[in-house]
Amino acid sequence: MSIIIKGIGSYIPKNEIKNEDFFQHEFRSEDGQLLPQGNETIIRKFKDITGINARRYADDNMLTSEMGTKAALLAIEDAGIDVNEIDAVIFAHNFGNIPKQTVQTDILPCLATRVKHDLKITNVDCAAFDIIFGCPGWIQGVILARQYILAGDAKNVLVIGAESLSRVVDPFDRDSMIYSDGAGASIISLSDDDNSGILSVASQTFADEEAYYLFFGHSYKENYTPDTRYIKMHGRKIYEFALNNVPVAMKKCLDKAGVDIKDLHKVFIHQANEKMDEAIIQRFYKLYEMDEIPKNIMPMSIHELGNSSVATVPTLYDLVKRNKIQDHQIKKGDIVLLASVGAGMSINAFVYKV
Amino acid sequence: MSIIIKGIGSYIPKNEIKNEDFFQHEFRSEDGQLLPQGNETIIRKFKDITGINARRYADDNMLTSEMGTKAALLAIEDAGIDVNEIDAVIFAHNFGNIPKQTVQTDILPCLATRVKHDLKITNVDCAAFDIIFGCPGWIQGVILARQYILAGDAKNVLVIGAESLSRVVDPFDRDSMIYSDGAGASIISLSDDDNSGILSVASQTFADEEAYYLFFGHSYKENYTPDTRYIKMHGRKIYEFALNNVPVAMKKCLDKAGVDIKDLHKVFIHQANEKMDEAIIQRFYKLYEMDEIPKNIMPMSIHELGNSSVATVPTLYDLVKRNKIQDHQIKKGDIVLLASVGAGMSINAFVYKV
Repeated sequence: MSIIIKGIGSYIPKNEIKNEDFFQHEFRSEDGQLLPQGNETIIRKFKDITGINARRYADDNMLTSEMGTKAALLAIEDAGIDVNEIDAVIFAHNFGNIPKQTVQTDILPCLATRVKHDLKITNVDCAAFDIIFGCPGWIQGVILARQYILAGDAKNVLVIGAESLSRVVDPFDRDSMIYSDGAGASIISLSDDDNSGILSVASQTFADEEAYYLFFGHSYKENYTPDTRYIKMHGRKIYEFALNNVPVAMKKCLDKAGVDIKDLHKVFIHQANEKMDEAIIQRFYKLYEMDEIPKNIMPMSIHELGNSSVATVPTLYDLVKRNKIQDHQIKKGDIVLLASVGAGMSINAFVYKV
Repeated sequence: MSIIIKGIGSYIPKNEIKNEDFFQHEFRSEDGQLLPQGNETIIRKFKDITGINARRYADDNMLTSEMGTKAALLAIEDAGIDVNEIDAVIFAHNFGNIPKQTVQTDILPCLATRVKHDLKITNVDCAAFDIIFGCPGWIQGVILARQYILAGDAKNVLVIGAESLSRVVDPFDRDSMIYSDGAGASIISLSDDDNSGILSVASQTFADEEAYYLFFGHSYKENYTPDTRYIKMHGRKIYEFALNNVPVAMKKCLDKAGVDIKDLHKVFIHQANEKMDEAIIQRFYKLYEMDEIPKNIMPMSIHELGNSSVATVPTLYDLVKRNKIQDHQIKKGDIVLLASVGAGMSINAFVYKV
C-alpha cells in the first residue's frame, strides 16, 4: 500500500507581462519616497536577484477558482479516473476569488465547492474545503490528503493550489514584479504499488516575529488607496529566514524517508526567487557535506512564470513530468523532494518515489 | 487507543445586541423594495422562526483571530497541557480578520499562525493553518485533527472555530439579525482511554445549485455601498435543504458508530435557527421510527447568542460541559452527536463518547 500522485495538471494564464511592462511604474520605498535609482536600474537589479523576466496574469474575467478547475480537469484526465471517484477536494489559496477591479476576498462559498460544482461531482460524500497556509498550501494539501487516505476516509483526493496575486499587488511596490497568477492540481491516491509513493512529509510554522514577515499592508504611495491593503513583505528577512530554515527542514524530511542524498534525483522548490532557491539548494547539500551540487537537480520555472504562490510547485512538477523543462526529466522509480516556504512563516516538504 | 476532546473553551463577546436594537433599521427585500410590514412585525416574525432574542458582537477593536486565542487559552487550560505539546493548530473561519470599518478579509498571515504567535508556541514542528468549510468548519477541523492523529503526525491538535459575522452583514437585510460573533476551541488528543473517544465521523458537500445558497452579494439598498459585498442567503432553500439532508447525514454517522438511537444522550446541532433545528431533530428521530423525541436531548444557545457560524457547536458543547445550560448535563460515558450545516452547502457530524 502506498500513496501516490496519480495525476497532475496545471493552468498557466496566457497573458505574459514582461519586465519592460513595468518601465512606466512609479516605484516607491516603504516610507513613501520615490526610489532614486530610475526604473532601468531597479528592474535590472530585480532581474539579477529574482531571475524573473516575465510573469503571467489571469484574464480580467477569470477567477482563481476557475483557474483551479482548469488545472483540476487536466489532473483528473492524467489520473484516468471518473470525477465521482474523488472522495475529497482540498483547495489551497491565500486570497480567495477577487474579481478584477474589486478588493474583497470572496470565499463564500469556499473555492473547493465551486470547483466541485464546475466539475459536476455528484457524490455528496466528497467533502470540499479550502486551506490557507501561505505559498506552501498545495504541499500542505498533499500532506492532508495523505492523512485523509491513511485514516481510511478517502482513496482519491483532488488537491488544488491556485492564486491570482495580480489582484493584490501594490503598483508602487517593486516587489509587485515578483507576483504571478496560476493553478496546479493533483490527484493523490491510495495505490497497491509499493515501488512508488510518498516516503515522508514535514510541515512547520515559525510564528515568533516571522508570523508577520508577509502581511497585508497599505500602498507605498501615500493616499493612493487609503482603504485598500495589498500583499507586502519584509524581503530581506524572508531571504535570511528561508536560507536558515528551509535546507534544515528538507534534510529532516529526507532523513525521515531514509533516503541517501546521493539517491535524490530532483528537488522541486517553491519558485519565489532564483538567488534564494540557489542558495537553499547549496546549503541543503552542504548539510550533507557536499560542496558540489549534482547537475540538473533543481528545475526552475521562475524566469518566465514568476511566483504564483501555491501554484508554483505543482506547476513545475507538471512541466517536468511532461518534458517541458530542458534537461529535466523524471521517470518511474526516481526519488524527488518537493519543498516550499511562505507566509506563516510556513515550511513544508515531502519525499516522493515517482 | 482513542481520540478525545481533551479540552474545550469558548469566548462569548460581552456586547449584547437585542432585537429592539434593530427597531430603527430600514429593512428591504432582495429586489430593493422597503418591506411593508413595519419593523415590529418583521422582528416579531423573525423571533418566532429563529428563536433569537439577542446576539453578541465583538468589541470594535477585537479581531476574529483574537477571539480565537481567548477560546484557545481556555481549551488549553481545560486540557491541562503545555502549549508546546500542541502538534498542529487548525483555525476554521469563513471571513478571516476584518478590522472594524474595513471591508477586506485579512488572512495574510493565516489566523492559525496569529494564534500560535499569541500563545507563544515555540515548537516549529507545530504547523498552523486555516480551513474554510462554511459554518461546519470547527467540526471539519475535528475530523482533520482525527486524521492527523491517526496518521501518526500529531498527538494534540488545537482546533478553533471563530467568526465575526457582524463585520459582513448588510444592515438593510433582515437576515442580518441572525448573525453573531464568537469563538470556540478544543484540544483533540490521542488517548489510551478506550472507554471514551470519537466513534465515527461524516462529512459532505452538496455542490449542485446548493453551492450558491449562501453567497457574497450586494446590499439590498441600491447604491448604498456599490463596491461592498455582504453575507447573503437563500433562506427558504437552505431551510428545505437542511431538513432533507441533515437528519439523513446524522443517521448515517450514528449508524456507522454502531450506536443504538436509544443510547444517544445529547445532540449538539449548529445554532442557525430554532425552528429549523427542531424540525431536524424531529426528522432525525422519525428516521428511526420514533415520533417522540427524548426530553432534553437538544441543548440550544441560539436564543441569547444568535448564529456565530463555526463557533456555535464548540461554544454550546463548552456551555453544557460547564453546566451553563439549564436541564442539560453531560457526564463521562455519555454518547453525544455533534452536527453542522452551512455554506458549501456542507454538512458534517461526529459521534463522541464523553
